[in-house]
Amino acid sequence: MPENNNKLYELYVQKMQKIADVRHSISILNWDKEVNLPSKGGAARSRQVATLAGISHEMFIDKELGSLLKTLHEGNSLDRFQTKNVEHSYRDYRKFIKYSTDFVVRMSETTSAAYHDWLKARQENNFDLFQEGLGKIVAIKKEEAELLGYDKHPYDALMDIFEPGANTADTDVLFKNVREQLVGFVRRIREKPQVEAGFMHKFYEKDKQWQLGLDMLKNMGYDFDAGRQDISAHPFTTNFSASDVRVTTRIDEQDFGNMLWSCIHEGGHALYEQGLPDEQYGLPLGNYLSLGIHESQSRMWENNVARGLPYWKAHYKKIQDIFPNNLGEVSLSNFYKAINRVSPSLIRTESDELHYHFHILIRYEIEKGLIEGSLECKDLREIWNSKYKEYLGIDVSDDMHGVLQDIHWSHGSFGYFPTYSMGSFYAAQFYKQAEKDIPKLTEQLEQGDNAALLAWLRDNIHQHGRLYTADELCKQITGEKLNFSYFMEYAEEKYSGIYGL
Amino acid sequence: MPENNNKLYELYVQKMQKIADVRHSISILNWDKEVNLPSKGGAARSRQVATLAGISHEMFIDKELGSLLKTLHEGNSLDRFQTKNVEHSYRDYRKFIKYSTDFVVRMSETTSAAYHDWLKARQENNFDLFQEGLGKIVAIKKEEAELLGYDKHPYDALMDIFEPGANTADTDVLFKNVREQLVGFVRRIREKPQVEAGFMHKFYEKDKQWQLGLDMLKNMGYDFDAGRQDISAHPFTTNFSASDVRVTTRIDEQDFGNMLWSCIHEGGHALYEQGLPDEQYGLPLGNYLSLGIHESQSRMWENNVARGLPYWKAHYKKIQDIFPNNLGEVSLSNFYKAINRVSPSLIRTESDELHYHFHILIRYEIEKGLIEGSLECKDLREIWNSKYKEYLGIDVSDDMHGVLQDIHWSHGSFGYFPTYSMGSFYAAQFYKQAEKDIPKLTEQLEQGDNAALLAWLRDNIHQHGRLYTADELCKQITGEKLNFSYFMEYAEEKYSGIYGL
Repeated sequence: MPENNNKLYELYVQKMQKIADVRHSISILNWDKEVNLPSKGGAARSRQVATLAGISHEMFIDKELGSLLKTLHEGNSLDRFQTKNVEHSYRDYRKFIKYSTDFVVRMSETTSAAYHDWLKARQENNFDLFQEGLGKIVAIKKEEAELLGYDKHPYDALMDIFEPGANTADTDVLFKNVREQLVGFVRRIREKPQVEAGFMHKFYEKDKQWQLGLDMLKNMGYDFDAGRQDISAHPFTTNFSASDVRVTTRIDEQDFGNMLWSCIHEGGHALYEQGLPDEQYGLPLGNYLSLGIHESQSRMWENNVARGLPYWKAHYKKIQDIFPNNLGEVSLSNFYKAINRVSPSLIRTESDELHYHFHILIRYEIEKGLIEGSLECKDLREIWNSKYKEYLGIDVSDDMHGVLQDIHWSHGSFGYFPTYSMGSFYAAQFYKQAEKDIPKLTEQLEQGDNAALLAWLRDNIHQHGRLYTADELCKQITGEKLNFSYFMEYAEEKYSGIYGL
Repeated sequence: MPENNNKLYELYVQKMQKIADVRHSISILNWDKEVNLPSKGGAARSRQVATLAGISHEMFIDKELGSLLKTLHEGNSLDRFQTKNVEHSYRDYRKFIKYSTDFVVRMSETTSAAYHDWLKARQENNFDLFQEGLGKIVAIKKEEAELLGYDKHPYDALMDIFEPGANTADTDVLFKNVREQLVGFVRRIREKPQVEAGFMHKFYEKDKQWQLGLDMLKNMGYDFDAGRQDISAHPFTTNFSASDVRVTTRIDEQDFGNMLWSCIHEGGHALYEQGLPDEQYGLPLGNYLSLGIHESQSRMWENNVARGLPYWKAHYKKIQDIFPNNLGEVSLSNFYKAINRVSPSLIRTESDELHYHFHILIRYEIEKGLIEGSLECKDLREIWNSKYKEYLGIDVSDDMHGVLQDIHWSHGSFGYFPTYSMGSFYAAQFYKQAEKDIPKLTEQLEQGDNAALLAWLRDNIHQHGRLYTADELCKQITGEKLNFSYFMEYAEEKYSGIYGL
């Protein structure tokens, strides 16, 4: 590589890493806000985060950085990895500078007002109070879609923010399958006798749950020298580098599953972040690929691994010993059935892994409709409730358990929800391949040994950062692009056994 | 106030508050580093802090801010408080811009290298390994003194960084008194039979100490809705606004005093920060006055209040109940004597409140000598050891317990140590006045009621931020400037009783 470009590339790296420093600082401030903040500390914290966000924005739209990126992008003396970094950054930069200050301010004002409307509407359990604010959000998201540009559908532009390359054409196919295959399959399950899961709601002591959670994370391969677990109201994973990736959980002494699944789910996210290449700190290749791929990592550990029988063959005895009063008399088989109990719920975050996709399907249909203009906010309660009746077969009791349940829209996050389902579908497809590539995977899991699986994920997914697109990555690993049939196959095999179909 | 200046003042406030946001973000990153950081997270954290430090520096030396400050400073339409804010900021600004980028980089490189030398020298218990690095630090500190400017003595310029307005002329007088009055007094104490304190080193259970520490902080008036306590290797206080002021402590199960005094000491610092006016966030009037005044707050609570008999009349029974095996048989009087045991030690941070000032005196004489050139680094071990013999009457066993014990010089902090002694002297003088102003203070403390004392501190000290100089504040509260005789009087009265002089 010529000396000149080498220096330019180094300058680019320096600039990107400084931007990353500021962004990670924001993450630290936000982590601390969720985990530690004293009640009166909120106002100062908000302004501190806002100031750093403004600074990182200014650093990224800096014209010097822009022309540096252009020069590097148009040159041809970088290696494959450097080229990919510059390609991503240049694309990100050109996307970023489309946002005028005026637009950013209006967006911020609109979502800030709508968020307060949403809070109030929830408090009063009345969607009408959110309708106007939501309307304004939809309007500005339409404007954002136009500003960003798209080939076929304005919703594509919004999905692309969270899932680069995703589009309505492909996503329509995924959810057509959900409608045509999963809805009928779940109906068949619901005709069968329900499994017993009451013992999951006995009293599970907090300290014992906490220690168990730490042990489960260790067993997964989570590196506590490069992270930590804390308690927060809503579990999340955040990272300040690949060497400082933190998870949080919550503990409900009357609901064992709460800690169990949040811990493993966030652990899956965290393993991805801990597996990103630290030497690419601040650069696209040091960053996660997309939300869908991120979610594939949490879902695989949560569902394909830890809601599987082999996993509990290794761990159930230990858990029985910790909670003998609750589980001493419960057989492994009944525990396995209980943690895979299929039952419709009004609340997305409390859903089983099958009904979950109906929750997402509904949000996808609504978001797409609002953005393309075929649906209107004023009809949303009615639309929501009728779709829950149609796909889940249940009546929505009130807005808080219906159209007001998720925070996403009040934040202006349109195009985010579909990545949750994609994550599960990717997980099923990847896991199928892992089973092929690691012939003794099941036996290993039965021994409590996840090392080969983690190594497989590191090799195939984590270490690459944004080197490939999600499509490329999926094809490279499995030979084809995202295909719903793997999830359906997984569901049929597993739940036919559990429910005796 | 004319509209025009009003707008300029608002612009100034905005800029200052954004700088404060970045600085407080650095404090959050550093707090997290001391309290939470996983072992592998250090490298990324260092670069994140460095990046934010660079940004805040750039924001403060911004020429736009400079000309704004000049305009406001030369105008005459601000109110008294606004005028004081601008005066301070303009002074700070002009001081700051004296530091060229070249100088800042050299300073950073010098201290960074010297810090590693110091670590290595401590590890090998050999001052010789630090001597050269220290010499470079002294050279660059001399350069800094010239760059900042001074009237009489180069050390004045360095003291001024930590204690605005302090100078060698006044400080020489203070330490002359320490030499002439305190040294002799302590000799008299050491001729008397020693008090018994072995029970302070029995086993004090960690969890009980932790809970006690929280209770003591609450009792002092520390607001846990505007702060929190955590564990760290070295106790400290930090603030992210007056509504988020955090303390840390450490717990040694074989040394009860460790938690006890660190907790009350940091609590005193924290009450000051919580008492600063929140509406002056980011402005000089929202900031602490000086390190000496800050230390006066921690020392007053630690020594004048919590090493006093009235305080323990209120609290001792409770502590006996928590640790019946250790203290059940120990009388209040003997406990009081034990916590005021006077005995020379090699380590500053383990010193009693009288010998403490000999530790500082020695450092002051050495720093001043190095900066004015009358002492040389190569002689430092010998000088240190002979001064410990002279003032404390003890032989220094090795460098780790001698000249290498403190981190300050390796950080380039020259002029910092004297503020520790000033803090104690201010505390004695302020406390004497508080006793006059609150006639029932002793009775209140005997009841465990600190409210009137805290209100007095808020009224007289905390709420003013940097409105007055330390001299002005001291005169305003006590009628005279800092006067060592108050500390001497306090010491004589208290220790004559304890040691039967």
